[in-house]
Amino acid sequence: MSLPVITAFRNSPDRGRGFARDMRVRWAFEEVGQPYDVRLVSFETMKEPAHLALQPFGQIPTYEEGDLALFESGAIVLRIAEQRAGLLPNDPDARARAIGWMFCALNTIEPPILEREVAGFTERDRTWFEERRPILEDRIHNRVRRLSDRLGDADWLDGAFSAGDLLMVTVLRRLERSGILETYPNLPAYIARGLARPAYQRAYDAQHAVFVARSSGETGS
Amino acid sequence: MSLPVITAFRNSPDRGRGFARDMRVRWAFEEVGQPYDVRLVSFETMKEPAHLALQPFGQIPTYEEGDLALFESGAIVLRIAEQRAGLLPNDPDARARAIGWMFCALNTIEPPILEREVAGFTERDRTWFEERRPILEDRIHNRVRRLSDRLGDADWLDGAFSAGDLLMVTVLRRLERSGILETYPNLPAYIARGLARPAYQRAYDAQHAVFVARSSGETGS
Repeated sequence: MSLPVITAFRNSPDRGRGFARDMRVRWAFEEVGQPYDVRLVSFETMKEPAHLALQPFGQIPTYEEGDLALFESGAIVLRIAEQRAGLLPNDPDARARAIGWMFCALNTIEPPILEREVAGFTERDRTWFEERRPILEDRIHNRVRRLSDRLGDADWLDGAFSAGDLLMVTVLRRLERSGILETYPNLPAYIARGLARPAYQRAYDAQHAVFVARSSGETGS
Repeated sequence: MSLPVITAFRNSPDRGRGFARDMRVRWAFEEVGQPYDVRLVSFETMKEPAHLALQPFGQIPTYEEGDLALFESGAIVLRIAEQRAGLLPNDPDARARAIGWMFCALNTIEPPILEREVAGFTERDRTWFEERRPILEDRIHNRVRRLSDRLGDADWLDGAFSAGDLLMVTVLRRLERSGILETYPNLPAYIARGLARPAYQRAYDAQHAVFVARSSGETGS
């Protein structure tokens, strides 16, 4: 049987620092021990009909496995977690809570973090940029303060490491250089625990290798 | 066996127009024919430790069923859809794609819509509000245009009505008075099909009744 295939940026905008959303999917594959293939796509290719048929918004990652084509990194991670053990508890209640943390990462924590990031990319030259910055940071603080309270001194959000932690760590990593998380020391420690997992390291190295190969002049297929 | 219990606003900020996130959960219950109870909470109660234990961010809805407590409307809808037939296809691939549309509604479509809404609530008096408005609207257009292209002339996003459509319709409804959706006539028609479902109507009436009871002087428990 052929391996599942995901798409990733041919030229990663973050220079291989692991912020692109294929990182979440690679990490999930590594946690459950599922080998996978990667098809690299350019920014031009991503807007063409063949890719839009897989991903209507012209983004990455996508996931193809037999006749199934999926998009949305959260849905792909959930699919992987349902296929093999390692990312969701067996107990049905604990499983539902872990899926709850997946939605929390993507629908409660990520939006204000991305709002600040997008403003940094697209509104930096606007007159209001500096004055709005504390407003955007307050929105993030309002969420991550509560998250920090809930995590407390636990290692993970609810018992053992789960797909909820996987997504939450990738979302919180986006704040690494913001200075915001330093107010909540348990959150950088939580991120560090995630990044120390061997599966994360393998996934990170795999995506970083794409950048290294590109920048050393070797071209992908 | 006791019924699942959800929380909803005692005083809905939208005056019973169905934009609060308990609406999604009520609609899901109605689609699968699962009776439920509602506990109304005030804005003060939502920030107290007992509610924060259920919902770390001090929001609604929550979901309690036996020993299970859940938050995140997406996770609650998925839980309901997994317990009873009616919101997810039986075919595993189609089921995975329907869950993909759930994540799409909440992680791709809702964030730019909420960003515009929050700006309307919190930045209306700022000097930059009018100048930023088209920027925020462009971010929404970039997403809903692609969604409109994908939907085409289909009734629902992928075959039969699913939990993905349920969440997408509730998210798109937030644009009802924005003038944005008029550019994409298939989207208002898609919303209208969702709102015409008897299950939607029952859910809408149930949440609207809370507002009517409050405004006529009858107090909830």
